Amino acid sequence: MGFQRIVRFVPKDNDSKILLGEPVDADVDVGLAVRKGEDVKVNVYSGSSVLDAGAPTGEVATIGRILAPLAKKEVGTIRCIGLNYKKHAEEAKMSIPEIPTLFLKPDTCLADPWPAPTIIPKHTIATDSADYESELAIVISKECKNVSEEDALDYVLGYTASNDISSRAAQFAQTQWCYSKGFDGACPIGPVLVARDAIPDVGALRMRGLKNGRVLQESPLTDLIFSVQQIVSFVSQGTTLQAGTLIITGTPAGVGFAKKPSEVLRDGDEFVVEILPKIGSLVNVMKNEE
Amino acid sequence: MGFQRIVRFVPKDNDSKILLGEPVDADVDVGLAVRKGEDVKVNVYSGSSVLDAGAPTGEVATIGRILAPLAKKEVGTIRCIGLNYKKHAEEAKMSIPEIPTLFLKPDTCLADPWPAPTIIPKHTIATDSADYESELAIVISKECKNVSEEDALDYVLGYTASNDISSRAAQFAQTQWCYSKGFDGACPIGPVLVARDAIPDVGALRMRGLKNGRVLQESPLTDLIFSVQQIVSFVSQGTTLQAGTLIITGTPAGVGFAKKPSEVLRDGDEFVVEILPKIGSLVNVMKNEE
Repeated sequence: MGFQRIVRFVPKDNDSKILLGEPVDADVDVGLAVRKGEDVKVNVYSGSSVLDAGAPTGEVATIGRILAPLAKKEVGTIRCIGLNYKKHAEEAKMSIPEIPTLFLKPDTCLADPWPAPTIIPKHTIATDSADYESELAIVISKECKNVSEEDALDYVLGYTASNDISSRAAQFAQTQWCYSKGFDGACPIGPVLVARDAIPDVGALRMRGLKNGRVLQESPLTDLIFSVQQIVSFVSQGTTLQAGTLIITGTPAGVGFAKKPSEVLRDGDEFVVEILPKIGSLVNVMKNEE
Repeated sequence: MGFQRIVRFVPKDNDSKILLGEPVDADVDVGLAVRKGEDVKVNVYSGSSVLDAGAPTGEVATIGRILAPLAKKEVGTIRCIGLNYKKHAEEAKMSIPEIPTLFLKPDTCLADPWPAPTIIPKHTIATDSADYESELAIVISKECKNVSEEDALDYVLGYTASNDISSRAAQFAQTQWCYSKGFDGACPIGPVLVARDAIPDVGALRMRGLKNGRVLQESPLTDLIFSVQQIVSFVSQGTTLQAGTLIITGTPAGVGFAKKPSEVLRDGDEFVVEILPKIGSLVNVMKNEE
């Protein structure tokens, strides 16, 4: 793969097309810069999917609207690992799992970063229980099954940021989590997909979650219970992972329901998942479903 | 919609094409007849998907190989309701749920009826814990969201049989069910899709599950806790259901792990999910993953 960091976007000068490309400034936090209204210039790639990004065309475009790095149909059913940070398992009063905890979201959860709105569904508004979960996301590069931990990174295209938006009232009303985390828009991702080899040590990443600028989650990825290799191997046992499969890897301590006093996402709230270095900020602004 | 009962199949005289059509004999149990090696004649329809089946072409074809009524890409993420029969909740020692219990399977679970093999994944072989769950499946006809119970049937294309194949050792090792029920082939469906209006009262259906000819599950659908209308409404709250979405609705009492002595699916075992009248038999034969 040729790119180090890639974004998918609608260019400023032509809102009828979608482009892929590598930000000209290798250090720019794309999500944050777009949110601030800054012009972000991108070296356009020839491909139409991050799964086959092609090569630089020589064209430089400015981001008009930033998108999730993959489209819904590329992602398919989203794999989600729960309880994968030691301190989060403690705050949720759950024991440290011995095997990864897997739940799923439909592809209709996939959502773009701001300025696309992140919708709080009606009954989550009614229960005032929308919550955030800052997470590192893995993107699978090619179809695989029964992958060993040793080979797992061979099937990883790269990493991006995600937010496992949750309806806590629905979550606590039943044992299974798919309903409470499966609403339209409950999985914003992006905007920067960083190539696997550009992040040789996931443990060196640092993640923060910020609501309206206040830091509510902050963790090094060394607190992960199951590694990227363990997760990819586990979820592929007996199960074909298609190219483009998105695996979100769990959230660190600091989720809203466990805070004292508790934190809730409401209409107009901004939430930022920041993963540094290289990935940068996934910015979303909540909007009540009408 | 024009059909009463529709099947998707490869014709006997041309194994390079896939056809749709209505069995000529309105009473034939297609799955059972195919399993017995009988010729099943079908009035071929013009469409290439049950979501847009078209009209009879006048051609009559004989089934060579029977398929699931929908393809993986049409189905998307599969919605699954757990604990939806009173007597099954009792045998599983779970309380009767007050809201539907939802978990999901990826589309890679979708599998054809016999003669396609139903694969037991390696670690389920190792734990000798493959189990069956006979279930009625609902197919959604058109995109919908926030559907009321009153309007729910407007979005139902029809009904078919399904088997929620489960790896019990994996299931009991964690709280979430998606891993233990999400393997390739863990959701065979079909072969007959019966139009909604041809089954005006789902409660009048009777379901049986037979392992190698022995009846292990037997229940009227009056034992359902949540109705088709309640289920469609529930899973669509805040969540777009796409045309082709498959919802499997839970299994009655008699699953293998709860039997005394317990029952397990092993290489070579045949399992039949029979739903009468009209739907008929979903036949699958287990095969160990190699």
